[in-house]
Amino acid sequence: MPVAKKSGEDLRETLRLPLGERIELAAYDARATPGFADGKQAALTDTARMGGRLAGLQERLWAAGTAGDRRRVLLVLQGMDTSGKGGTVKHVIGQFNPAGCRIQAFKAPSEEERAHDFLWRVRRALPGPGEIGIFDRSHYEDVLIARVRHLAPPAEIGSRYGLINDFERELAEDGVTLVKCFLHISHDEQKRRLLRRLDRPDKHWKFDPTDIAERALWPAYQEAYELALEHCAAAHAPWYLVPADRKWYRNWAISRLLLEHLTALGPRYPKGAFDVAACREQLLRQA
Amino acid sequence: MPVAKKSGEDLRETLRLPLGERIELAAYDARATPGFADGKQAALTDTARMGGRLAGLQERLWAAGTAGDRRRVLLVLQGMDTSGKGGTVKHVIGQFNPAGCRIQAFKAPSEEERAHDFLWRVRRALPGPGEIGIFDRSHYEDVLIARVRHLAPPAEIGSRYGLINDFERELAEDGVTLVKCFLHISHDEQKRRLLRRLDRPDKHWKFDPTDIAERALWPAYQEAYELALEHCAAAHAPWYLVPADRKWYRNWAISRLLLEHLTALGPRYPKGAFDVAACREQLLRQA
Repeated sequence: MPVAKKSGEDLRETLRLPLGERIELAAYDARATPGFADGKQAALTDTARMGGRLAGLQERLWAAGTAGDRRRVLLVLQGMDTSGKGGTVKHVIGQFNPAGCRIQAFKAPSEEERAHDFLWRVRRALPGPGEIGIFDRSHYEDVLIARVRHLAPPAEIGSRYGLINDFERELAEDGVTLVKCFLHISHDEQKRRLLRRLDRPDKHWKFDPTDIAERALWPAYQEAYELALEHCAAAHAPWYLVPADRKWYRNWAISRLLLEHLTALGPRYPKGAFDVAACREQLLRQA
Repeated sequence: MPVAKKSGEDLRETLRLPLGERIELAAYDARATPGFADGKQAALTDTARMGGRLAGLQERLWAAGTAGDRRRVLLVLQGMDTSGKGGTVKHVIGQFNPAGCRIQAFKAPSEEERAHDFLWRVRRALPGPGEIGIFDRSHYEDVLIARVRHLAPPAEIGSRYGLINDFERELAEDGVTLVKCFLHISHDEQKRRLLRRLDRPDKHWKFDPTDIAERALWPAYQEAYELALEHCAAAHAPWYLVPADRKWYRNWAISRLLLEHLTALGPRYPKGAFDVAACREQLLRQA
């Protein structure tokens, strides 16, 4: 487990999974709060404080996009059922201007989607220049549930890791900053969250009895995740392991990762391609 | 001008334009605050207070959608340049969970879009069941700029009013609550806002010199709006005239219109289609 660092350090380094090494998820504590030592209340305050900065950077990115800057961000959220992908969209992405966000939740593929290669539907959902794209599940499902549930022949699934790597390299070269987050929850916490959904009638719509059968396959899913995190990581497309048993930490950490990436991009308001003084004069001359 | 009513009354009635009457936009004061008498600070507080209720109703609508309820809301925002369509998305729609919002800003149609009938691109951007759809501009541009700029033969433009009415009736019958808002700003306020964009380098990206030429056509646009507001209004798809010279009123009024509509829809969390006790037991028996 990486040593917890003090707030103010680069969380990307703290949470980035090592490249070219075996990943053992059991070695990571899902209740840890790496990079943040000050507890829940401080995290909520800090997250709220980041909101304004995130929205400001987003506006600059968007504005730059209107002037030809092709850069954009793609947040990929993966994790077991109840790990908080939806909660992240609500609480973290809710801090941005929704007009500049392109959110896609990937469900089981439709018949039309299955008629194409597995990246087809993903390409159609990519953010445009200046946008923040958010994938709630993604092309990784095609090496996760597809592997565990044998939805394709093993050789085909084996070939997908390379196809994903090619795809993500192509995205990076086209100006996409990939922020891939694995929301790491513990087996116990998943049980608590599923039981809570059952306890509360206003949460029943989130519950699917097949979640129980999926949970029984926990070890196979963890292994499939380990393979994906090992095989599909690169300097331009690393995985961040976000301990997610504590929701306040998850929201803080993902806000912070986005803030660090956006700050590093340093988007700027573009210079207008027009004569300001002449336009002002024209306007003032009008009735 | 409708008489200002006290807060607490039905704003839909206050702002709804009359059906089957000539509309004269000049008769409406763009600085008025119908339905709200208490000034800016109170409006900001009340708008923020509505945020939680809006998000709660949205979650119920979304949850109902997962269980087969086809109902959804479509907010259509129209208004002259600088009238605040983008600001409405940021400040009003920003109160919702972005995962359940489907936002489309309509620009000049692409070549592909022009190859189809004018409603083609609009149909593709409709909200799904349980979603809040937001159109920043819409199919109305095809009877607004298209009319003023002669982008199609007059007979064709004339036929579009009926096609729009048929389309909106079809939507209403399919469970879409249409909330069509005309953001009414004054000619003077537009000048102030355009000049402010020129004064601030961080706003230059929002400025387009063609805005000046469009502004010169103000009377033609007002007339085109009057025709659209007259011809394309029905009990199931009325127009709300939102005075928009004061941004705080605009945000308050549109939040309130959405709140009233969502409250009237009364979406409910669906009952789970599973045996809660059996699921709980199965979960508890698992490792």
